[in-house]
Amino acid sequence: MIELFSTERLKSLLPQYKDFVEKELFPIDLSVLKDDWQTAFIMLKAKREKAKKLGLWAPYLPEVEGGLGLTMAEFGQISEILGTSPLGHYVFNCQAPDIGNIELMHQFASDTLKERFLHPLMAGEMRSCFGMTEPELAGSNPVHLATTAELVGEEWVLNGHKWFTTAADGAAFCIVMAVTDPEADAYQRASMLLVPTDTPGFELVRNISIMGDEGGGYFSHAEILLKDCRIPKSYLVGAQGDGFSMAQRRLGPGRIHHCMRWIGICERAFNMMCDRAQTRELNPGKPLSGQQTIQNWIAESRAEIDAARYMVLHTAHKIDQEGSKAAKIEISTIKFFVADVLMKVLDRAVQVHGALGITDDTLLSFWYRHERGARIYDGPDEVHKSSLAKAILKERTAKQQAS
Amino acid sequence: MIELFSTERLKSLLPQYKDFVEKELFPIDLSVLKDDWQTAFIMLKAKREKAKKLGLWAPYLPEVEGGLGLTMAEFGQISEILGTSPLGHYVFNCQAPDIGNIELMHQFASDTLKERFLHPLMAGEMRSCFGMTEPELAGSNPVHLATTAELVGEEWVLNGHKWFTTAADGAAFCIVMAVTDPEADAYQRASMLLVPTDTPGFELVRNISIMGDEGGGYFSHAEILLKDCRIPKSYLVGAQGDGFSMAQRRLGPGRIHHCMRWIGICERAFNMMCDRAQTRELNPGKPLSGQQTIQNWIAESRAEIDAARYMVLHTAHKIDQEGSKAAKIEISTIKFFVADVLMKVLDRAVQVHGALGITDDTLLSFWYRHERGARIYDGPDEVHKSSLAKAILKERTAKQQAS
Amino acid sequence: MIELFSTERLKSLLPQYKDFVEKELFPIDLSVLKDDWQTAFIMLKAKREKAKKLGLWAPYLPEVEGGLGLTMAEFGQISEILGTSPLGHYVFNCQAPDIGNIELMHQFASDTLKERFLHPLMAGEMRSCFGMTEPELAGSNPVHLATTAELVGEEWVLNGHKWFTTAADGAAFCIVMAVTDPEADAYQRASMLLVPTDTPGFELVRNISIMGDEGGGYFSHAEILLKDCRIPKSYLVGAQGDGFSMAQRRLGPGRIHHCMRWIGICERAFNMMCDRAQTRELNPGKPLSGQQTIQNWIAESRAEIDAARYMVLHTAHKIDQEGSKAAKIEISTIKFFVADVLMKVLDRAVQVHGALGITDDTLLSFWYRHERGARIYDGPDEVHKSSLAKAILKERTAKQQAS
Amino acid sequence: MIELFSTERLKSLLPQYKDFVEKELFPIDLSVLKDDWQTAFIMLKAKREKAKKLGLWAPYLPEVEGGLGLTMAEFGQISEILGTSPLGHYVFNCQAPDIGNIELMHQFASDTLKERFLHPLMAGEMRSCFGMTEPELAGSNPVHLATTAELVGEEWVLNGHKWFTTAADGAAFCIVMAVTDPEADAYQRASMLLVPTDTPGFELVRNISIMGDEGGGYFSHAEILLKDCRIPKSYLVGAQGDGFSMAQRRLGPGRIHHCMRWIGICERAFNMMCDRAQTRELNPGKPLSGQQTIQNWIAESRAEIDAARYMVLHTAHKIDQEGSKAAKIEISTIKFFVADVLMKVLDRAVQVHGALGITDDTLLSFWYRHERGARIYDGPDEVHKSSLAKAILKERTAKQQAS
Repeated sequence: MIELFSTERLKSLLPQYKDFVEKELFPIDLSVLKDDWQTAFIMLKAKREKAKKLGLWAPYLPEVEGGLGLTMAEFGQISEILGTSPLGHYVFNCQAPDIGNIELMHQFASDTLKERFLHPLMAGEMRSCFGMTEPELAGSNPVHLATTAELVGEEWVLNGHKWFTTAADGAAFCIVMAVTDPEADAYQRASMLLVPTDTPGFELVRNISIMGDEGGGYFSHAEILLKDCRIPKSYLVGAQGDGFSMAQRRLGPGRIHHCMRWIGICERAFNMMCDRAQTRELNPGKPLSGQQTIQNWIAESRAEIDAARYMVLHTAHKIDQEGSKAAKIEISTIKFFVADVLMKVLDRAVQVHGALGITDDTLLSFWYRHERGARIYDGPDEVHKSSLAKAILKERTAKQQAS
Repeated sequence: MIELFSTERLKSLLPQYKDFVEKELFPIDLSVLKDDWQTAFIMLKAKREKAKKLGLWAPYLPEVEGGLGLTMAEFGQISEILGTSPLGHYVFNCQAPDIGNIELMHQFASDTLKERFLHPLMAGEMRSCFGMTEPELAGSNPVHLATTAELVGEEWVLNGHKWFTTAADGAAFCIVMAVTDPEADAYQRASMLLVPTDTPGFELVRNISIMGDEGGGYFSHAEILLKDCRIPKSYLVGAQGDGFSMAQRRLGPGRIHHCMRWIGICERAFNMMCDRAQTRELNPGKPLSGQQTIQNWIAESRAEIDAARYMVLHTAHKIDQEGSKAAKIEISTIKFFVADVLMKVLDRAVQVHGALGITDDTLLSFWYRHERGARIYDGPDEVHKSSLAKAILKERTAKQQAS
Repeated sequence: MIELFSTERLKSLLPQYKDFVEKELFPIDLSVLKDDWQTAFIMLKAKREKAKKLGLWAPYLPEVEGGLGLTMAEFGQISEILGTSPLGHYVFNCQAPDIGNIELMHQFASDTLKERFLHPLMAGEMRSCFGMTEPELAGSNPVHLATTAELVGEEWVLNGHKWFTTAADGAAFCIVMAVTDPEADAYQRASMLLVPTDTPGFELVRNISIMGDEGGGYFSHAEILLKDCRIPKSYLVGAQGDGFSMAQRRLGPGRIHHCMRWIGICERAFNMMCDRAQTRELNPGKPLSGQQTIQNWIAESRAEIDAARYMVLHTAHKIDQEGSKAAKIEISTIKFFVADVLMKVLDRAVQVHGALGITDDTLLSFWYRHERGARIYDGPDEVHKSSLAKAILKERTAKQQAS
Repeated sequence: MIELFSTERLKSLLPQYKDFVEKELFPIDLSVLKDDWQTAFIMLKAKREKAKKLGLWAPYLPEVEGGLGLTMAEFGQISEILGTSPLGHYVFNCQAPDIGNIELMHQFASDTLKERFLHPLMAGEMRSCFGMTEPELAGSNPVHLATTAELVGEEWVLNGHKWFTTAADGAAFCIVMAVTDPEADAYQRASMLLVPTDTPGFELVRNISIMGDEGGGYFSHAEILLKDCRIPKSYLVGAQGDGFSMAQRRLGPGRIHHCMRWIGICERAFNMMCDRAQTRELNPGKPLSGQQTIQNWIAESRAEIDAARYMVLHTAHKIDQEGSKAAKIEISTIKFFVADVLMKVLDRAVQVHGALGITDDTLLSFWYRHERGARIYDGPDEVHKSSLAKAILKERTAKQQAS
């Protein structure tokens, strides 16, 4: 624990989460990932109930909502622990995309939608998904959307094509980004609409096979067709035309949540790398850890992970103090910085494991494959780097003009 | 085609191979990889027959054996073309591990073994595998083997545990490395033995799931148990105790074959990257290719692939002139150099494809996952770098002492 | 200023130092570096007096000694500001090697030595140097020393050969590491002795030309010969045989002082890079800053400098809380991590400046040349990486054995 | 020697050049670089005479001109040998910028100019310089020039400001790029004019201090002012308005000449690195070469230098076969590829030398400092990468449209 980010409640909470994750999830996570979703679901349900009983459920929620009312910096440290297992966030109901939808609906959904959808979601009784990315248009340009929602009488009629809709398979509803005001200014065209997945016209085309896995249930990313899909007028979430700004608001915390989780992955991969280095022998009595190249990788990984953690926690602290809009630059920075550290650490851990590292007998292959997307989803590196540089240069110009 | 490595027959052959691969294999390769092996096999069989009819079968074999009698430098250029499709080498019967076994048996197998096993292998009527790597011992130290073969009467009795036995599933036989002379000097302990896979005690435990794929048939890597597995005394390949030196002789060309194939992969990934850059638009009329970062990646990839090709072809040329032993240093060099180029080019191609790049809707994911092993199999980078450095330093010392 | 590392006095002090450095030193630093030392000295003396008058002198010293009594984390933030000019540390009497000698003598020198040497040093009335590194022996192995000091009657007689004795030219005395107990255990062989530079036998052979500069006075690194150099018995600093442990104690803070200074260099180089990007035009109206490659460099530099700063300040905070011995691992980590960031940022800043970047018309060339040593002095990267890895692995083993 | 690039005359010539460089130049090059130009000049003159006597003078010149009539691929291999000493090219009269001016004047100068200037230049009796780069305008955009030459009566009147005019100090004349036709199309505005350096108005402002060295004589880079500088109308070189296309023609070979020379630097630095690794001991009997990190650097450097050489020689071969215009893409490729290899090899060599590596006691510091410009002069990396990518993409589009 980093002394400056430690708090009284964290001192008590962190060991509980760590203990749970290491004792309840580490022994099963590799096999659960290989199970079909039905089998996995039963196992995970039991763990979720245990988490609830221990009072560890949904730590990011306010206390009045049944959560722990943590600051972002506190949650960041717990999220890292959860991230050490691919099951961690799900078991404590902190998983994307639900966590983002919960934050969003909390702020913007009508009371009716809250009661019908948000409360069961918070209780872990249903799952949700978020339909934004479209296959034909560059995801890095979020104002380009082809999906439309037209108000016809008392209903919105949606048409469009989405993909990379995470966890749509089995979700109860989808928050869909769609153009409602095609004539408006680029940033005011889109709105968010809640579409129950059993609505006629909502078609899950396939779970997209990603880096070798189609997955299923929560562990999946769907392609979705919306064909004359009709929902009540009241299923609009937030104000009409506010879709883009709400998406931005949703993505900021989403990005830092990813970064926190990635640090957890890094730490587990780092531990696996060290274990392997200490136990695998090149010759009897000559473990890999005696090789200077391996030592370099251990040292570089340690330094980079520590750097990443500091970056993320200071960003979280800034969000706590000044809000996520004020931390926009920092969020762009950690998005590409931490993703890069993650890639390097995973790559070294794989290499230290040799042939074993490329098998599915360890978690490394799962992460190596599925976290390659870290440099792409929620904005590719290239976009975040340009944004950061432009923001820096703009601020400089403003200062110079002011002085 | 590189002018200095061009020959008359290449000028005629290369376009034929290129045409075949692009017209016959490109349209099907992505889907064949997703088929189960039974389905894939039927499709591939038809393509193999076509290849035979066109006189393009097994180009690396001597003319008397039905091949084209190419030099290594010529074959390297054809192998690159074959490598542009994951099906290329198999369709022309140039695939590892069969190509290595064919070379090996050619030199060392008895006439009986040749007739019974080598000829059908060359004709593509059976497949083979090579059992060397063991899970408990570092593959980078080839003199460490726990598998034993004891001569009991007229039979060898084998016991041991192998893994990463490529293409064992469905193979007719396996060339197994086993310790036959435990008391001998480290480099004279092992021998090679031909074990038909239907021998009692030869147990294929599983096809190891690698980077998300168990695969099947030719596209698989097995874990094998040998339990009191008995084969005739005459199934020894080469002289007793020569296993290590034969393995070295087998691995040298094996490594350059990999490098040639990797360059083919690089070229196809490079083409996909350019295609994507030219067709994907960030905004209407603004393709990705206008972004300087993308341009950097295209330029760097072009330079690195060209460098890799020159390195490989000059090494091939040296093997042609002086034999593969004389080119040992060059082979170590290209092994880690080309693998590194491959990783970089694939990584950039994935990034340029964005979300599509991590799906299994293109070949990039297949290569990104399955060629991560390139830095590990046939000796990890670390081992080749140390070997190369030690060889350089040793040669310097020898020169200094001589002068 | 980083919110979590801000304190009341820093809020008042930092702007004063920043103002002084930017207004008093930025306009002259490039030209002072080109002056001979005599000329430079006069200019610097005036600045030092101004610093004293403003009450900003020697901020790292305890208040009773006339300093500001800052914590390491506070000083770190001031040191960064000082580091933005190559003159900063000298002007405020915080420059290596004097700062290290002051800390050392404070703890270990006799009252007589303190009065005669330490007090004028603290007052900026004399300069000192530290003689440890020897040309014939690897500096990365500090227990290997060929310099000896033999007690003959009431005098120590020193013989040996030193180099990279920073700022020896014009220094009043040198703290010399010498073997006093050749038969003792490796870590108890050496002692520290104070040798006035006017002692017969203390010969400054040359100011070593480093990366194009011989330098002079404070800005120099000497080669020193000690030939039967006799000093009083009482000029031993600390206990006999404690030289190695005192050196370690001296080097710990020395390393973090370097890191803090490097971050200052990074920030100034970063600013120069941004200025250049915004003002240099490729075509009329098309500044360099519009190029995506330049934007990437700005973004990556920003992220890396921030990461480096967090690493350093958290290490400083740990030193404040638990002492520098407890922070040994963190100090090794920042030593190679920050040096690497420094190299990258300087290299990018040079490249953005084009031809101007390689001239001596800006500070970039000075830093590019003289800070290449950052990866070497006070322990090369390789040594720190190995140390860090070994410490991590040892701690793991200890934990595993404990549990 | 690379077998495929070997020729009969090379087999005889290469050892002669190697012998000369290693025996005549290696022992003096470090000290000559530190001498003032007057002293250096005398030493170098003697070596030049020796080179002439041995029939090794100006190997790149046609036989009729007193050279050896080598192909570019042959000269490349000799140029590499010359490049192993910073004196090599000068001693054999192959040094930039004279070699470029000789090629240029050969093709374009009038007979009078040839007799008066070219012949003494070829004989090594005078030196020349080339004035293109201007401080106020981005060198990477060669059509932007502020220097003008106006035809007034029978004279050209030049006005302008140049810098990085290599070797102007002591040169007899300068080929100046100046705008002669300001109203013409961008690429037809400039012409080349021969300006004797003793022309009134030709003012050498200073030798620019570059990375710590002002240099002098041949080893210098000047800032030049042209103030109403008048030369005869007949001193135009080539046709009026052809300056840009002639510059391009001059720069192509200029770039490959640099690359060849860089490979020579790499080889010498590589040898120094290996020497140091084998002789420097960390502990008695434990040379640096036993460290795996050092071995990695040796192996990676070997691979990269070999790759660079293949790239350069194949490019040279293409120029020999098809002319330098046909090899434009290859020249851009090697420019950034080889410069990058050079930086990496020099950096590793410095690091292996430790403190010694940053002193001026070896050549490494000279190259580390002065070759940082390799990524900048004759077009920065960024420009060559973009050019290469655009050329590749353009060619693809052309092919696609054709098919």
